[in-house]
Amino acid sequence: MTRAELFQNIQQKESYLCVGLDTDIKKIPSHLLAAPDPIFEFNKIIIDATADLCVAYKPNIAFYEAQGPKGWESLEKTLAYIPKDIFTIADAKRGDIGNTSELYARTFFDYFNFDSVTVAPYMGADSVKPFLIKPDKWVILLALTSNPGSQDFQLISSENSKYLFEEVIQKSQQWATKEQLMYVIGATRTDYLQRVRALAPEHFFLVPGVGAQGGSLEEISRLGMNKQCGLLVNSARNIIYAGNGPDFAQQARQEARRMQQEMAEYLEKYLPV
Amino acid sequence: MTRAELFQNIQQKESYLCVGLDTDIKKIPSHLLAAPDPIFEFNKIIIDATADLCVAYKPNIAFYEAQGPKGWESLEKTLAYIPKDIFTIADAKRGDIGNTSELYARTFFDYFNFDSVTVAPYMGADSVKPFLIKPDKWVILLALTSNPGSQDFQLISSENSKYLFEEVIQKSQQWATKEQLMYVIGATRTDYLQRVRALAPEHFFLVPGVGAQGGSLEEISRLGMNKQCGLLVNSARNIIYAGNGPDFAQQARQEARRMQQEMAEYLEKYLPV
Repeated sequence: MTRAELFQNIQQKESYLCVGLDTDIKKIPSHLLAAPDPIFEFNKIIIDATADLCVAYKPNIAFYEAQGPKGWESLEKTLAYIPKDIFTIADAKRGDIGNTSELYARTFFDYFNFDSVTVAPYMGADSVKPFLIKPDKWVILLALTSNPGSQDFQLISSENSKYLFEEVIQKSQQWATKEQLMYVIGATRTDYLQRVRALAPEHFFLVPGVGAQGGSLEEISRLGMNKQCGLLVNSARNIIYAGNGPDFAQQARQEARRMQQEMAEYLEKYLPV
Repeated sequence: MTRAELFQNIQQKESYLCVGLDTDIKKIPSHLLAAPDPIFEFNKIIIDATADLCVAYKPNIAFYEAQGPKGWESLEKTLAYIPKDIFTIADAKRGDIGNTSELYARTFFDYFNFDSVTVAPYMGADSVKPFLIKPDKWVILLALTSNPGSQDFQLISSENSKYLFEEVIQKSQQWATKEQLMYVIGATRTDYLQRVRALAPEHFFLVPGVGAQGGSLEEISRLGMNKQCGLLVNSARNIIYAGNGPDFAQQARQEARRMQQEMAEYLEKYLPV
């Protein structure tokens, strides 16, 4: 998917919502456990309930891997089920030497047909570039994450008085254009959001940490939005586990709807003209 | 496995060799392709040919994931086949927010029963600690890697005049002891090896990059060995693809044997008394 197509979807749906498919067998409604593939069954119902309200789905790969080969199959079926006009993100946080990153790229782009993969920057250029070989596939690079541990290294100041996450954002722009590269910027780090936007004015940011982790959607939208919106705001637990009974799909839809309506308002208010 | 047990194995086998099981379906001898599970078949033969010469096996998870659910099964069978007294490393380079790292830990430690996992430090403490909950399981943290991209961020100087990899080595020692924490130090970075050893005098280092990537075994051993050896030197392609015909197992054994004999010599020469 191209950046223009993504923006078009955002405008059409008045939404920049990404639904995180962090599907945990221990948390899904118990009446689904009798299905032959409960994880896929749950995802299918969640997708049916939210597809018109969101522009992206982000399966968290750890949740599928934890199920062994069966989890891999649930993921495969989930990807095949997601409507083709919705952007897909493999939240995998991979990154390894060139020949190994190449294989991860093959897995997520060729085998599963994801549009994008989250990648950790620590190993540098040759660990990221193998994910960039197809023009319609994206790298979403970790920059400033939403967890408390983001302070340990990402906020170290370099001798050039730049934070490590700023070095990551600047250097990585030599590797790919804004048509193939996004950044992960945690919703809990709005104190740095303007600084980040100045460094990457036209890039999309994937923003986790709204909801369960405490970030504010209004603040992110006000400080982070650019002319193509430039934001994909992820919500997982708050949507997919909004309910736990037979009406869980309705509850999920209601929460997704609530976020989409808030987003419609912010698009009206903050999208630069 | 404990550090003492690992050192015992090193002394007994006169080896600190780790065999990298980077098993690529495109590179294994063609006569194996008729087997029901060619990847496991290949690993089984390699393990039989090298188990008395090495103290660790390191499957590179990317190679198994690239095969989909079948690859996951090959990995499971491989882990079950490795003799229990040999240390196992899931080379996965994971690292995510707490609840997600917890799931990765469950996958590699509970599902596959690995002894250790390689972890990327970028997301900080709460992305690493979930891998440390069992006292006999290890984190092998990326510090200074063997690839060219290691220069991009790992060698950034902080305002305290420390390299990022030094910050990683120092801070992470607050999270775990030397009984549960190792570091990845690339064999191509011998220029920094003494500096690293000074920061972590008693830790084990996992050293990739000998062979195909050009690092020198003699130099690593001379500069990096501590009283418990403190080194696991990985070799993958040079051993497992030493031959490609019907005698590939013999060829692999011969190369592993050559490295083990060199290691026996360095243990004699460089192990501090």
